[in-house]
Amino acid sequence: MKKTRLAIIGSGPAGLTASIYASRYQVENIVFGQQRGGTIGLAHAVENYPGFNSISGLELMGLIEKQVVGLGTEIVYDPAVKLAKSETGFRVQLRSGEIREALTLLLATGTRRRKLGVSGEEDFLGRGVSYCTTCDAPFFKEKRVAVIGGGDSAVSGALHAAAFASRVYLIYRGEKLRAEPIWINQALKNHRIEPIYRTNITMITGENIVEAVGLDNAYKGENKLTVDGVFIEIGGQPVNDLASQLGLNLNEAGYIKVDQAMRTSLEGVFAAGDNTDFWPHFQQMVTAQAQGAVAATSVYEYLQQK
Amino acid sequence: MKKTRLAIIGSGPAGLTASIYASRYQVENIVFGQQRGGTIGLAHAVENYPGFNSISGLELMGLIEKQVVGLGTEIVYDPAVKLAKSETGFRVQLRSGEIREALTLLLATGTRRRKLGVSGEEDFLGRGVSYCTTCDAPFFKEKRVAVIGGGDSAVSGALHAAAFASRVYLIYRGEKLRAEPIWINQALKNHRIEPIYRTNITMITGENIVEAVGLDNAYKGENKLTVDGVFIEIGGQPVNDLASQLGLNLNEAGYIKVDQAMRTSLEGVFAAGDNTDFWPHFQQMVTAQAQGAVAATSVYEYLQQK
Repeated sequence: MKKTRLAIIGSGPAGLTASIYASRYQVENIVFGQQRGGTIGLAHAVENYPGFNSISGLELMGLIEKQVVGLGTEIVYDPAVKLAKSETGFRVQLRSGEIREALTLLLATGTRRRKLGVSGEEDFLGRGVSYCTTCDAPFFKEKRVAVIGGGDSAVSGALHAAAFASRVYLIYRGEKLRAEPIWINQALKNHRIEPIYRTNITMITGENIVEAVGLDNAYKGENKLTVDGVFIEIGGQPVNDLASQLGLNLNEAGYIKVDQAMRTSLEGVFAAGDNTDFWPHFQQMVTAQAQGAVAATSVYEYLQQK
Repeated sequence: MKKTRLAIIGSGPAGLTASIYASRYQVENIVFGQQRGGTIGLAHAVENYPGFNSISGLELMGLIEKQVVGLGTEIVYDPAVKLAKSETGFRVQLRSGEIREALTLLLATGTRRRKLGVSGEEDFLGRGVSYCTTCDAPFFKEKRVAVIGGGDSAVSGALHAAAFASRVYLIYRGEKLRAEPIWINQALKNHRIEPIYRTNITMITGENIVEAVGLDNAYKGENKLTVDGVFIEIGGQPVNDLASQLGLNLNEAGYIKVDQAMRTSLEGVFAAGDNTDFWPHFQQMVTAQAQGAVAATSVYEYLQQK
C-alpha cells in the first residue's frame, strides 16, 4: 500500500499552497482533489489576488497547479471519500476504491454551493438551473436569466451573465446588495441587469427546460417571471463529511475548529481554508493560502518531533 | 489639509494587499512607504508565492504596486514619522514635514533587520558590511564573504552570494541550519559555500574596508577569518515606533497585539503583517497578505458603522 507523509484533501488555494510549503520543507505529500482549482476555479475574474490585475480563477489555479507539480507532488483527481485512523496514521479511501496511508492529514475541503431548496431546483439542474454562472453563462446568449443572491459571487456572476444574456434579473432577498462595492457599482450601471430586492424565488417551472420562476413578492404586478435560466449563487457551506468521519470538533455552523497553528482536535490532523472556523466570514484566496502555509508548517514541525 | 479615509503605513505585501481590498470596497486610501516592496522586496528569489514559480521580490512587488495604482491609490514614498490622535481621526506627519489627516490607520510597518552589535559593524556599513545579500552580493565577484545567520534569508543569501563570490562562509551560532530544507540542501551541495557552526563573530576589522572577522570559536585553528565582505542576515525585529507613539498594546517581543479582525487596542487603528503578534513566528508573504485583506475588511466595516 502506498504511504505518504502528508495527504492533502482538497485542491483549492489552501490545499495547493500547503503543498508548495510542504514540498519546500521536503515533506513528501500528495493532493487528492475533486474539482480543479476549488471554488475559486469557478470565478470568471479574480481581481483582488496580489500579482495579477485580472485573471480567471481557472487560469490562476492552473499556474499554481504547475508550481505544485514542479515541486514533485502528484495531484490526484480521485477524491477521498472515507478517512479513518490507522495504526501508524490514517487510512484514506478514494472514490475509485483505492486505499492510501498517510502519516498526517490536511483537510482543505472548502465549501460547497448552498441550495435554495425550492421545487424544480433539482429537476432542472443542467436544464436551465446552474450553480456556476462562470461555467454556464455562455449558454444563455440573448436569453433571459435570473441570478439568485446578493453577495460577491451573485453580483459578479450577474455581470458575467450580462455579457451574454439580453436580460439579467438579480434577485435578492435583502434590501441592499452585499458584494464588494466595486462589483455593485458595475452591476447597477449595467443596463442589462435589473435588480429585484426583498424577493425570494418560490419555484422553478417549465416543461422540459426552465421557463419561469415564481416570486414571493410581486414584481411589476406579477408573481411569475419568465426566464430561460436560473443561476443560484447564494454562497457555500463547509464540506465537513470527512471531518465528521474523524470525529473532529466543528463549530455550530459546521466549520472545523482549528487553533492558530491550524491544528484540529485530533492529533496529526490539520485543516486550512474555507472549511475552518478561523476566519469563517471571510473566505478569500489570500486567507485560504495563509492558512495552508501555516498548516504545512505545523505538519512539518509535528513530523520533526515524531 | 489633505484628508483620507484610510492611511496605510507601509508598502510591503500587507500594506499593498490591504490597499487592493480597500479600493475594491471603495474606501479611498493612500499608502505611505519607506522602502519599495518592504522586506520581500529584498529577496532575490521568491519561490513559495502561489502563482509564480520563481520571481524576484522586487519584480513581484512591482506587479502588485501597479495593481494598487491601477485601482486609483497613490503610493507615496515619504514615510510617516509621527502619528497622533486628532479630533476627527489621526494626524500623519511625513518625513518631508507634510501633514495628512486620516479617519483610520493601518500599520503595516513590518520588521527591520536585526543588528549583531559587534565592533566594526557600524563603521564598515557600506564598506563591506551589508544587511542585504540580494542587493549587494554582485559587488563581491571572486571575493571571500561571510554570511551570518542560519535562517531562510541567510541560507538563500549564501546561495545568492555564491553566484558571485569565490568563497562563502556561512557562519551560524546554532548546530543546525533552520532554513527551509530545500535551501539547506542546495547550500550544502554548493562547493563554494562552507558552513561554520556553533560560532559567533566577535568583531569586524580592516583598514578602510572589511578585511577580516573575529570568531569566538576557532575555525581551522584560527580565531580570525579573512573576508572582503560580511552579510548580516539574522532576521528582523518589529518596527513599532509609530505604534508606540499611539500607545498601542505590544507583546513582550514588541509586536503589535491584534485580534482576529486585525484591530489594535486603539479604536480606528488596525495593523497587519510582520509587525503584529498574529503569527509572530511565521512571517511570510501569504500570511502578511491575508492579514492585510482582513484588516481592510475591518476598516470598511468600521467606516460603515460610523
